[in-house]
Amino acid sequence: MPELRKDPLVGRWVVFAPERKQRPIDFEGPETSLPKVDAFSAGNERLTPGEVYAVRPNGSTPNTPGWKVRVVPNRYPALRIEGELNPEAVGFYDRLNGIGAHEVIIETPDPTLALEDQSLEGVADVFQAFRHRTLDLMKDSRFHYLLMFKNVGPQAGASVAHAHSQLMALPVVPMQIKHKLQIALRYFEEKDRNIFEDILRNEVKNQERIVYENQGFVVFCPFASRFPFELSIYPRRQSPDFHSVDGHEMVLLADAVKNALSRLKVALGTPNYNMVVFTAPVRRPRKNYWSTIDFDFRWHIEILPRLTGIAGFEFGTGFFINTTLPEEAAQYLRQIRL
Amino acid sequence: MPELRKDPLVGRWVVFAPERKQRPIDFEGPETSLPKVDAFSAGNERLTPGEVYAVRPNGSTPNTPGWKVRVVPNRYPALRIEGELNPEAVGFYDRLNGIGAHEVIIETPDPTLALEDQSLEGVADVFQAFRHRTLDLMKDSRFHYLLMFKNVGPQAGASVAHAHSQLMALPVVPMQIKHKLQIALRYFEEKDRNIFEDILRNEVKNQERIVYENQGFVVFCPFASRFPFELSIYPRRQSPDFHSVDGHEMVLLADAVKNALSRLKVALGTPNYNMVVFTAPVRRPRKNYWSTIDFDFRWHIEILPRLTGIAGFEFGTGFFINTTLPEEAAQYLRQIRL
Repeated sequence: MPELRKDPLVGRWVVFAPERKQRPIDFEGPETSLPKVDAFSAGNERLTPGEVYAVRPNGSTPNTPGWKVRVVPNRYPALRIEGELNPEAVGFYDRLNGIGAHEVIIETPDPTLALEDQSLEGVADVFQAFRHRTLDLMKDSRFHYLLMFKNVGPQAGASVAHAHSQLMALPVVPMQIKHKLQIALRYFEEKDRNIFEDILRNEVKNQERIVYENQGFVVFCPFASRFPFELSIYPRRQSPDFHSVDGHEMVLLADAVKNALSRLKVALGTPNYNMVVFTAPVRRPRKNYWSTIDFDFRWHIEILPRLTGIAGFEFGTGFFINTTLPEEAAQYLRQIRL
Repeated sequence: MPELRKDPLVGRWVVFAPERKQRPIDFEGPETSLPKVDAFSAGNERLTPGEVYAVRPNGSTPNTPGWKVRVVPNRYPALRIEGELNPEAVGFYDRLNGIGAHEVIIETPDPTLALEDQSLEGVADVFQAFRHRTLDLMKDSRFHYLLMFKNVGPQAGASVAHAHSQLMALPVVPMQIKHKLQIALRYFEEKDRNIFEDILRNEVKNQERIVYENQGFVVFCPFASRFPFELSIYPRRQSPDFHSVDGHEMVLLADAVKNALSRLKVALGTPNYNMVVFTAPVRRPRKNYWSTIDFDFRWHIEILPRLTGIAGFEFGTGFFINTTLPEEAAQYLRQIRL
């Protein structure tokens, strides 16, 4: 059973998942002459746990070919779906059972197709899969936060090359999310304005860090980018919840993401990167500390190209050192013809 | 001129240092047939900026051979020593000039000698160099925090193989340090006890995460380790400041660090790692928010082996996933015969 432990000095939770040692790694170790089996390709559906969601335009049978997007439980989950949380003190410390969900969104049956090279509809299907799974997992009262992310390439922590994203349902709200929520709340209390809207207005007015805009979303290099060519994607419509996106707005989101990733690919030559969706915690229908969240917090996306590493300076301070100004990165990305 | 920018959403400072793009990297890119010049070796003193401190047992001339430890300004500094901070608002955002010091502690003239393979006196000389430079840089009122760290190996962000550490004088107190200080202060206010002392007592009593103890220091695997084989080193004596260590206590510190690193080397086969010294901010002689710091905060060291990467999950949450329990790591490290 995986276990969550809290660091009393910084309030950070760590997931202990010894089983994940066994997962196969595409990128590590010496090359072998055996061809590797891609469990995420069409025809290999029996090699993954049974699907919990799929886009099957012709109504094909679950766990057979004929799908466009397929969501399955992670075979090497960091968290387990069965059991009770049992939060408890262990002597001086706090722990709880590693209960949660850990699902893989297989973005395409084609082992060589990257997310940004799919059609607009294909990209929208991937985000629609996120949304469907989110709405389902939210019903489970053990889960307090739903984390959506995508690791591409070994430098970004990916262990499989076939295009995929991940969804984790967590039994606690992560410190980093709480921190963003607190700052957004404090900003709203002080100014009666939304900090995301203020950032967006500032960027759109100023234009020098803007990379791409459509009717629903703005892609820009943030003022204090941690990494060269880091991108943020903000929705123009205020909502704390990613799952509020639907219909035409989902197509606009797909367009913004496809555009952002395509520019990064041209600029950096298929970079390793992390993409993270930041959304509000799951909220129960009671008045709580986050009650004004509909006004103060906005869901958003961060894309972090991993050209540079994380060293002692970053761990010691939470600081980052970046050698590329966001204005330069944005100018370079803007002039790319797609 | 480097520049510091603050992320308004999370309060994190990022250092923009475009000049650092030009620094040579030992570990990256294709091998060339040209032998690389090691600017940190004895006889190559002219290849570094002039020394600001050195241990020269026979009183040899500065910037010539005959030294054991040598401190020089970083040739590719993330921060510059000359100038004013000029903190200012840029539209919606906050910035200041990248003023600070960035020094390199060359731990030995021998290009092949690792820190843990030096004599006890050799290791103590390295930490004594940290202390001397700290006491000197503290006098500059532009500097609010002194960060000491060591990156070993390309996975840990090192660009040079010759054994060295780094010291940075920062114009702001980093968020991560503020966060630890706040938690330590809150703990003391609530319990009238020091959180570091409570952790230390708990670990020493329990023993299962202890790796090594001497009269002055305790080496252990922390309860919520982020990385497999992560180590913390706590002093037994309460002091917020690393620079309070001197005399026999410095030898005990050298013994604890040498012991810890030697065990990691046997267990993991010369791992890449980061070592960070966490110490209190520079304090001016006035009453301030941190006035009880002599009781509530304790300087300490963290050693982070970098066997695993940082992926979207970690960036999205501040969570970490660890596949090795600290109890197992400690048991393994304890039974190693040095």
